[in-house]
Amino acid sequence: MGGKRRAHTPANEEAAGNGLLHRRAFIAGAGALAGAASADPAFAEALAVEPWMTAPGTPFTGYGQPSRFEAGVLRTYANPPNAPGAGAARTPLHRLHGAITPNGLHFERSHSGVPDVDPDKHRLLIHGLVARPLVFSLETLERYPMESRIAFIECGGNSAALNQPEPAKSNVQTLHGLLSCAEWTGVRLATLLDEAGVDPAARFVLAEGGDAASMSRSVPLAKALDDAMIALYQNGERIRPSNGYPMRLLLPGFEGNMQVKWLRRLKLVAEPVMTKDETSKYTLLQPDGSALQFVFPMEAKSVITHPSAEQTLRGPGLYEVSGLAWSGGGRIARVEVSADGGRSWAEALLQEPVLSKALTRFRLPWRWDGGPAVLQSRAIDETGNVQPSRETLLARRGPRALYHFNAIASWGVAPGGEVSHVYA
Amino acid sequence: MGGKRRAHTPANEEAAGNGLLHRRAFIAGAGALAGAASADPAFAEALAVEPWMTAPGTPFTGYGQPSRFEAGVLRTYANPPNAPGAGAARTPLHRLHGAITPNGLHFERSHSGVPDVDPDKHRLLIHGLVARPLVFSLETLERYPMESRIAFIECGGNSAALNQPEPAKSNVQTLHGLLSCAEWTGVRLATLLDEAGVDPAARFVLAEGGDAASMSRSVPLAKALDDAMIALYQNGERIRPSNGYPMRLLLPGFEGNMQVKWLRRLKLVAEPVMTKDETSKYTLLQPDGSALQFVFPMEAKSVITHPSAEQTLRGPGLYEVSGLAWSGGGRIARVEVSADGGRSWAEALLQEPVLSKALTRFRLPWRWDGGPAVLQSRAIDETGNVQPSRETLLARRGPRALYHFNAIASWGVAPGGEVSHVYA
Repeated sequence: MGGKRRAHTPANEEAAGNGLLHRRAFIAGAGALAGAASADPAFAEALAVEPWMTAPGTPFTGYGQPSRFEAGVLRTYANPPNAPGAGAARTPLHRLHGAITPNGLHFERSHSGVPDVDPDKHRLLIHGLVARPLVFSLETLERYPMESRIAFIECGGNSAALNQPEPAKSNVQTLHGLLSCAEWTGVRLATLLDEAGVDPAARFVLAEGGDAASMSRSVPLAKALDDAMIALYQNGERIRPSNGYPMRLLLPGFEGNMQVKWLRRLKLVAEPVMTKDETSKYTLLQPDGSALQFVFPMEAKSVITHPSAEQTLRGPGLYEVSGLAWSGGGRIARVEVSADGGRSWAEALLQEPVLSKALTRFRLPWRWDGGPAVLQSRAIDETGNVQPSRETLLARRGPRALYHFNAIASWGVAPGGEVSHVYA
Repeated sequence: MGGKRRAHTPANEEAAGNGLLHRRAFIAGAGALAGAASADPAFAEALAVEPWMTAPGTPFTGYGQPSRFEAGVLRTYANPPNAPGAGAARTPLHRLHGAITPNGLHFERSHSGVPDVDPDKHRLLIHGLVARPLVFSLETLERYPMESRIAFIECGGNSAALNQPEPAKSNVQTLHGLLSCAEWTGVRLATLLDEAGVDPAARFVLAEGGDAASMSRSVPLAKALDDAMIALYQNGERIRPSNGYPMRLLLPGFEGNMQVKWLRRLKLVAEPVMTKDETSKYTLLQPDGSALQFVFPMEAKSVITHPSAEQTLRGPGLYEVSGLAWSGGGRIARVEVSADGGRSWAEALLQEPVLSKALTRFRLPWRWDGGPAVLQSRAIDETGNVQPSRETLLARRGPRALYHFNAIASWGVAPGGEVSHVYA
């Protein structure tokens, strides 16, 4: 039994230092509670009739919720007293598996809270340098051809805490949780722009949100005509209010704030508009004090989610190292994992299908010997973009680097099994 | 502008009768509210400052919910007075787009309600014809290598109402809503069986659920060693209680009831156990009164979700016909759509990536001339399995055919735009 799998399985030899095994190593015996001796009390326990088996369970409901035992799996956030809803709510990546983020836990960055938009009154206006300005209601948009794609969204400021001189005592949610992935469905923006008739002088599109902050960004026309989407659905159902209900701009791979939520207006213009949201922030400060503006795609990046900071390994033995990789440049080509702080690397297994500009789950078996270890992951995308070390990124961008912080993250494992955020 | 797209676009000529266009026809002008004349009041309306733009919106929350304006997008169900939770809750396929079903709306079939399982007390026992019986807790299972896959689940009794002599006055949710699709993550069952050491005499695996109904089925060992999974996560988060929290058996492509929820026991046996759930039901009655037992994979099938019964088209013009196709046999190879009740067919566009044993969204533009129409879809899978007409299926299976009812569904469009369930 299982022979077919074993025939393709390399020997369980180390693929890199400190216990990393080959990505197709065959793992068994990781942790059954009991085996072989059927007199073991664990078997009687497993066959016990639990209370929930003795009476009918709860009846059907229209819209389901997670188990009450998962009540702690939540986004984390601050609601500042003078500006509730200005900030962000972060996805608990350390409590999730796979690549899709469930809608209730998709991260959220808002500049003035979540507006309660009435979909029947909401309109999308396309105007400016076009032959025919157009107005759409949600209902009229629904008649256009739709498309679906699984895409990540990452806030431009995700992982910024890694610029601190000492490693923040935080977990993966706090450090890297401004990152999520969903199946988005909507109308390709190019379809609507073609109908409007783009003036040859147009080079940018001002995208304006219907929130009280009027969040606005200038989007290159080339992106608007490429894979931009007016997204109406998120994982099958209508986009959640915190993600732009009833419609948002989806710019696969671009920094999150440009993917304007509660989208109400697209104005075609010759030059960037220089909105407050692209001048006062979302610019990349350089070591010489100047700042790069309009750096749009997020770079190749990855993070290990299991095990990760604030988790504890229960004794030496076999574990699976698992995490997420992504790039605004396209598909992830390869992810490498280190258990010795970057001295040696082994190639992780990528979960198929590997999709362009989507989160990709990677996995690698690891035999922890109970000694100290530093776990790291490094993503390489199909364009050859390699995730840099923290040292390299800071040398390139200076100590105040904040946005687009795609450096390698490190989790230290102590002999007691405690995992914590470290620099290595 | 848009020239690149147009270059690949065939002329908007009919691809089949009654207005079906080529699947890559370039569609514009489907339904903007206003165009060209910027004095149109629609433009002033689009630029109006709505109340939700004048004050900060709601602050952050730990676990998000849909907009209050979507309160009507719900599963439908009956909770019979003497057996609440015995029956099914159906997915509102006509209100969803894309291929993923959000967790709150995944269909549910329960035989004794939803048990409130304590994950710390839950155990999975593997025993019977094995060298080493094994017991797993949720925590120990988490240490094994995981995998993710997007897979549909369809109840064996889905669409059974199409066996009625007259078309039921129902919509796609009521008729076909025992169908959903999610990204599932968990441990491949073959890994655990390899560790247990399967006895050569074993041919089946009894899978038993931890609900009050002890839902139990005999699963072929070959499937258990192929792509079966102990699924722990659904669209990233822990499986929902109504889908088997904390663990279910996932048997991609097999009928839903075999994918036992709240899975507590797998016993390897030489012959099928003949449980109540595989003798009193889930057998296929034949025209001669005999019944086929153990028909496992769901057949090639599709259904149009937009437009569908109980919706109304708002006047002649361009629409997108959109629906879902799936097969327990593997990938969908082709979906054909008819607007004239099956006299002529056009090939629909399949949304990439087309994944094995997952829902596949198909789409085709349609120019409705305002006259009567009958919309149908027909799926063909990679094994050559073709979705049959209702007439063919009833001729083959007899008038009491109930389970595995994969016949072509028909939506009639009346000149007023009303869409209804018809036979054609």
